[in-house]
This record gives sequence, C-alpha cells and structure tokens, in this order.
Amino acid sequence: MTRVTVWNENRHEQKNPVVSEIYPKGIHGAIAEFLQSDNYEVRTATLDEPEHGLTEEVLENTDVLVWWGHLAHHEVQDEIVKKVQQRVLDGMGLIVLHSGHFSKIFKVLMGTSCDLKWREADEKERLWVVDPTHPIAEGIGEYIELEKEEMYGEHFDIPAPDELIFTSWFEGGEIFRSGCTFKRGNGKIFYFRPGHETYPTYHNEQVQQVIKNAVKYVKPADRKRPVYGNAQPLETISAK
Amino acid sequence: MTRVTVWNENRHEQKNPVVSEIYPKGIHGAIAEFLQSDNYEVRTATLDEPEHGLTEEVLENTDVLVWWGHLAHHEVQDEIVKKVQQRVLDGMGLIVLHSGHFSKIFKVLMGTSCDLKWREADEKERLWVVDPTHPIAEGIGEYIELEKEEMYGEHFDIPAPDELIFTSWFEGGEIFRSGCTFKRGNGKIFYFRPGHETYPTYHNEQVQQVIKNAVKYVKPADRKRPVYGNAQPLETISAK
Amino acid sequence: MTRVTVWNENRHEQKNPVVSEIYPKGIHGAIAEFLQSDNYEVRTATLDEPEHGLTEEVLENTDVLVWWGHLAHHEVQDEIVKKVQQRVLDGMGLIVLHSGHFSKIFKVLMGTSCDLKWREADEKERLWVVDPTHPIAEGIGEYIELEKEEMYGEHFDIPAPDELIFTSWFEGGEIFRSGCTFKRGNGKIFYFRPGHETYPTYHNEQVQQVIKNAVKYVKPADRKRPVYGNAQPLETISAK
Amino acid sequence: MTRVTVWNENRHEQKNPVVSEIYPKGIHGAIAEFLQSDNYEVRTATLDEPEHGLTEEVLENTDVLVWWGHLAHHEVQDEIVKKVQQRVLDGMGLIVLHSGHFSKIFKVLMGTSCDLKWREADEKERLWVVDPTHPIAEGIGEYIELEKEEMYGEHFDIPAPDELIFTSWFEGGEIFRSGCTFKRGNGKIFYFRPGHETYPTYHNEQVQQVIKNAVKYVKPADRKRPVYGNAQPLETISAK
Repeated sequence: MTRVTVWNENRHEQKNPVVSEIYPKGIHGAIAEFLQSDNYEVRTATLDEPEHGLTEEVLENTDVLVWWGHLAHHEVQDEIVKKVQQRVLDGMGLIVLHSGHFSKIFKVLMGTSCDLKWREADEKERLWVVDPTHPIAEGIGEYIELEKEEMYGEHFDIPAPDELIFTSWFEGGEIFRSGCTFKRGNGKIFYFRPGHETYPTYHNEQVQQVIKNAVKYVKPADRKRPVYGNAQPLETISAK
Repeated sequence: MTRVTVWNENRHEQKNPVVSEIYPKGIHGAIAEFLQSDNYEVRTATLDEPEHGLTEEVLENTDVLVWWGHLAHHEVQDEIVKKVQQRVLDGMGLIVLHSGHFSKIFKVLMGTSCDLKWREADEKERLWVVDPTHPIAEGIGEYIELEKEEMYGEHFDIPAPDELIFTSWFEGGEIFRSGCTFKRGNGKIFYFRPGHETYPTYHNEQVQQVIKNAVKYVKPADRKRPVYGNAQPLETISAK
Repeated sequence: MTRVTVWNENRHEQKNPVVSEIYPKGIHGAIAEFLQSDNYEVRTATLDEPEHGLTEEVLENTDVLVWWGHLAHHEVQDEIVKKVQQRVLDGMGLIVLHSGHFSKIFKVLMGTSCDLKWREADEKERLWVVDPTHPIAEGIGEYIELEKEEMYGEHFDIPAPDELIFTSWFEGGEIFRSGCTFKRGNGKIFYFRPGHETYPTYHNEQVQQVIKNAVKYVKPADRKRPVYGNAQPLETISAK
Repeated sequence: MTRVTVWNENRHEQKNPVVSEIYPKGIHGAIAEFLQSDNYEVRTATLDEPEHGLTEEVLENTDVLVWWGHLAHHEVQDEIVKKVQQRVLDGMGLIVLHSGHFSKIFKVLMGTSCDLKWREADEKERLWVVDPTHPIAEGIGEYIELEKEEMYGEHFDIPAPDELIFTSWFEGGEIFRSGCTFKRGNGKIFYFRPGHETYPTYHNEQVQQVIKNAVKYVKPADRKRPVYGNAQPLETISAK
C-alpha cells in the first residue's frame, strides 16, 4: 500500500478565517481526507512540528510526499530540505502544489528560480489537458474549470518539463504550464498549479482526481538505486 | 546564403477579395518580401504550378521550405509529398504555418492526425514565450499580441514537440501550443500557428521576426547524412 | 483485464529450422506464453491469416498490440496499416520489437526512415538502464546482458524519443537507443530492440520482464478521445 | 564578438608531470588557444586566483563560461557558485567538461547527484552522434574515436537532457550519455564528457570542433529576462 505524507506549512489556516473556514482541518487535512478515501495510507506533517514533522523515520516510511507552502518557505531548515532531496533522488515521489513552486525543495530539485507572474483577482482558470495519454489525466475531460483562482502566468522559470500535461488559461490574458512532470535521480516529481488558500480548490473533485492519479504515477518504481563510483576492473568482456 | 522557398496554396487569394486586398501579392509574396529584406535568397512556389512548383531542381536548391495551405491539402500530389519528406529527412528545414497543420507533408512527418479545435470569431490572441533561451524568440518580448485571429485550441494532436517556444492564449477560453520544433531525420521543423488568411498577420513585424529567426534555426547543419545498412564486419576493435 | 494481441510475420519459422527449433510455436507463441502467465488476456495474429489476423473486431478488442516483422514488411496491406495507426491514435498501446523498426506501422507513426546500422556477428549486447525511474525497467538491474545478438547501431533514424530507457552496448564498437517510448495521439508506443530470430532472446527472463512491464505501461489511459473541429461559439466566458 | 571565459581548477597541472607535459599552459590554456583561433574573445580563470578569477566584472563580461574541475570541487566557494548560477539563469552559456560533472555549479543547476561510474584503464572511447541535426555536431562524422580515455558509465544521475547529441561506447562494456544540452532560466548548458587530464584529448581536432560549436550554441540569445512577480491588474482585455 502506497504511503503518502501530506506536508503543509499550515500558517494561513491560523491567521486567516477565510482559509480556516474553507479548510477547517487545514489544507493538509483536506488533502489527506480525499487520499485516504482512495485507499492510500496517509499521514500529515506541518512546519511547526519538530523537524517540520519530517523525521528520518517519517521520510523513510514515505513513498509519496505532497508539499504545500507559501508564507514561510524560508523557515524550512536547510538540513531537512537536504534530506527530502536525498529521499527524492532515492526514489520517493514528490507532488508540489501551487505556491510550493517557491519552496526550497522544489528550487533545489529544479536548479532554477522557479519564479512566475501572479495576480489575485478572482479569475476564472481553465486547465487544458495537452497530453491525453497521461495517467495523471485519467478520468478528466478536456479541461478542468475553476470559477475563481489566483492567476499564475509565464514565464515560469523551470527546466522544460519531461512531460507537460496541463496548461492553464486565465481570464486576464495569461497562460501557464500548470501540470508538469520531472524526473530527478530515482524519483518522480509532479508540479500542479491550482490551490490558492482562499478558494475551495482542493474540494473540487477533478482537482482531487488529478492528485490521486499523481500519487499513483510518482510512487517509486520497484528498483534498487544504481551503483556509482569506481567500476569493476576492465573485464575481458569482448574476448570471445 | 540560405535559400528559402515559400510555398503557398494561393487559392484564397483568387477567390476572396478580403484576402487579396490584405495580400495583393499573395501570402507567399508577403512572406517572400520580408525574408528577402533579411538577406535570404528567396523564391516562391504555388499549388497550381507544374509539380506545384516543387520540381526536384527546386527542392535540391532549397535549404528551408515555408508551407502555407488550407483549402486544397488533398490536391497536393502524394508523389510530391514523398519528395518533400525525403528532402526534410535529408536535412532541409521546414516551416509549417497556421492551417498547414493539416497539410499532407506535416501529417506524414508527425504520424498523427494533427487535428485541433478552431473558431472564427475575431478573437484576440497572445502568444506567450515559454522558452526564453530559444533563438526563434530572439527580439521578441514576453508575448506577441494579435488583435484579431482565428482561434486554434487544444488538444492539438501532434507528438510532444522537441521544444515548446510559444503557447497562445485566446479570448474565448482556449490555449494552444503555437510555436513548436520537431526534428525528423537530418531536418528541423518549426510549426507556427498564426496567419489566418483574412487577417494581416504576416504584416505584423513580430510575426515576421519569428519567421526570420525560424529560417535561421531550421536551416541544415553542415553534416553528411549518416550511413545506414549493413555495417563493417566486426573489427578487432577491443583487442589492445 | 488488459487484452493483448501478439502479431508476428511468422515466416522465418516456416523457412529456417534454426528458428523453429528455438521457437517451436513461433515467436508470437513464445511471447504470448509468457504474457499469459502474467494474467493478460492474450491472442495471436499472423501475416498469412485473412486481414493478417487484424480484423476490425480484433483491433477493437485489443488494448495492446505487440509487433514482430522482418522479411515481409511490404506484404502488410496499407489499408490494415491505416486501421492499426488509427487505433493507436485512438489509444491502443503498441510494442514494436527488433526488426519491426522497419515495419510500415512504425514508420508511419514515426514519420522518419527508421533506418539503422546492423551486423550479424554473434556479438554480446548489454542494454543499460538510463532511466531508473521508469516502470518499464522495474525488476531489472543495471543492465541486461545477452550473450549473442544481432548488432543494431546508430544513427537510428527516429524522432527523439519521449523517454529513453535503455541504451545498448555492442562488442563491435556500436551503441543503440534500444528502449524508447513515444506518444502518438492517445496511444503510447514502446520500441524494444532485442529479438533476432536466430537467438533465444525471448526466452530470456529479463527480456520477458521488460515486455510485461511495457504492456502495463502502454495500455490505454481511461479517457475519452478529445473533441476536434469547429468549437463552440465564443462564450461570454470572461464576463464576470 | 562572443566573450568566453575558460575556467580551470589547474591543480593536476601543478602536481602531475604527465599532465603538465600534455598541457604545458594548463588545460585552460589549451582550450583558450583553440577558441581564440576561432575568433572568440577568450580569457582564462583558475581556482587559486582571488574569487577564483570569477569576479563580478569578469562574470558580467562573459557570454560563455567553460568549466573544468576535478580534485578541488569542494574548494570552490559557495558564494561564487551562487553568482555563476545566477549568471546562467540570466543567460550566460555554460560548457561543463568531463569531471566537471561533479562541480558544485553543475550539481546546483541539475538538482541531482550527477554521480556516475568510472574506471581508469586506457580504454578506447567512441562518441556516436545520435542527433545529426544538431549544430554542436557540425563537421563531425558518425563518431569521434579517442584511442585512450577514462571510462564513464551509466547510470549518469542527471535530469533527462533536453537534447542528447552524443553517446559514448567504451571498450570495457559501458555506455554513457556524453553530449547533453540543458536549459536553465535564460541560459543554455552543454555537458561534454571527454577530457581526462592524463590524455591529450583537448588536442584532438574533433573534440575542439565540438567545443567551438558548443560555444556558438550556448551563447545567450538576444532577449531581455522575462518579468516576474505581481502582474498588472486585470485588464479589460476581453471586452471587445
């Protein structure tokens, strides 16, 4: 059974009644809930727990880590970020949501600024499926429509994704590569744009479907990590 | 000096006064003109010429072929299509414009239906640059805005492009991968979306800049075609 | 349950006792056998059956088509090739093996010559895993070693694969991109190099594992084909 | 005129007479020499200079940075690495050679361990061209052969390259993705494998040709860096 840890900064929920009304159990609670219903083994972790809730024991028992952060990226300790990065390279799947684009963990895995344009103006968003073969888009029609969301616009400063699955249209004139996969080491990563804290985006069933699909997609393949370093002395491999 | 052949179906120009007013010398004439000013050696060819103007002699002396077609894709002879395809595989660059997405030559090179959504409703289009490193986007700002264009929407049934340079936003709610490169054999291909015949799109200086850049990008590398077939007998290559 | 059809030209088996001794039930029979043991619903089809065994009824009930051909690519009827291509674009998975690189179906889906170098010299092959995240490499170590195989060498004239999973080393000095995925329309394609008819390659358990994994990978996603053509008239989508 | 800075650790040259005999002016001196002959404006910089020779003034006046390091990656100051990374994201081209795969700058740009297999056994290497369209392969035949080199083998722990141009064959049974491009921010990166310090690899004319070609390829496109951050308030863009 795939073991998922949903990590959330959990600060907006403490400060902003709009957010805590939409997500009474926190964004992490909402995500954990719909993943549990899909028969995953789910736990949550938040910034203010010791080691941000990401102890070695937790990380070692996590197949897929979901990440939501925004206000306090800088408070995440570098040492924890390094451990998470190593776990991804060792095969743990990672799903980065919305403002997590600016998290330390996403930035060290991408190598770029991960910067973008944004605007809070209650705009309509349409996430168009541009890769209809992809299992992350299973069960989704031609697009997902969200009545109101924060706008994210290009240029999105990421490496060209290995696969581009969704591209968003925004009412105000921007587009955004909003569903992207990346492989790093033995790990698979999925970035998914929607989820501004003041909208009920994670209650949307299609958004939930995408995240459920993504868990299945990024979970580790059953392989040992390759061997690196000084290789065997030259065999007489070619001598017949 | 790079030798460019601009191919145009040249039918709308004969039938529709709106088109012939915008493009008195035809779409091919307009494109040839701004390419000539960039110091390329340019000729034109059209559907109704013998062999569609694409004789072996013309093809052999073409480094980059620009393609615009719409009404009469089915009238292009299969034999000519095969010759063009072979020239692309041998290294000739190919720039496919707008409704050329449904040309035989583009479809045989892609292997897919190349189908898409469309709507003629005088919509605003914004072509956002999503790859700021790319020489095809040189001299272009963050986006190109076209006041009125035909809408093309996803899903665009092409293989995942090797490089995605532009993505279009349309007023009516759609997005489209509108600037894409592909490599086939020794040849480079650039698909560029804008250019519906009833709008003065090819008079837009930024659109012209992109096409000029593209000619430079898809022109053949200075290499011989690789050798295929039965290889040399096994050398005693590994015996030191 | 995934429904697999294993297609084989089945000519070498009739002519060459070396081949029929290695594969008494034909190459298709051998492949069908190990797929059946993996709980797939498997049937076979061969060139000399009516419609090459690929009637519309068979194609409509096939989730994944495996293809082995060599001597008689030209005997496969263009009409059947078109139907198979359409089925791939509609979502059917396709696994092309070894000399199938020159099959009509692979060439129309790639748009290139699919040419390569080759040599029959009983050379050792090592297929190195270059994408350790990929489910097609599940259960495989760092490489698969085949004591004797036909050599295939670069340049392999295919579009850049969407994912490169294996690259082969050959004793005589060549390398080859030997495990490649491609997406076309709604369909996923896997090309896998090994399997010259005079070697017992399809009895190798690791080769079998890769093909089993590939069936799982290329089987259709559960989606409806996107809608193409003239789109809805412009909604007043942006009017809040 | 393109301004190139060739950076070298320059330690082997001080310690090992084998190296200083092959490269009397250092590896940086040898590379600078053949680039100068190609009409580039070239300077060099080395580890033991103040700020490793990479002052802000030098970096700001560098279009393409070439990097060779091996023994002392850890001695490169993090602050300098950050500045170089920022310059790449701002558009400076970067060419990383051989053991530079383990440099801090390459690792932060890749986000992975960049680990690999290696063996020093005077093995023959053949770098096969797998992308014949690429300008970095201009003037190169089917492969480059180096009589003796250090072996690097897969798995090479990098993100899937944007373009794979060369793949190496080694006598002892390994293969390696030895010529790879990556885009990060506004910058283009080329990793090129050959160049172990005890072999005269950078005196090889084909290796020189590749590096010359690469300088041309990774030099910055003529564009302004995109605008990030809070975007303009929602225009009434859609209101016709």
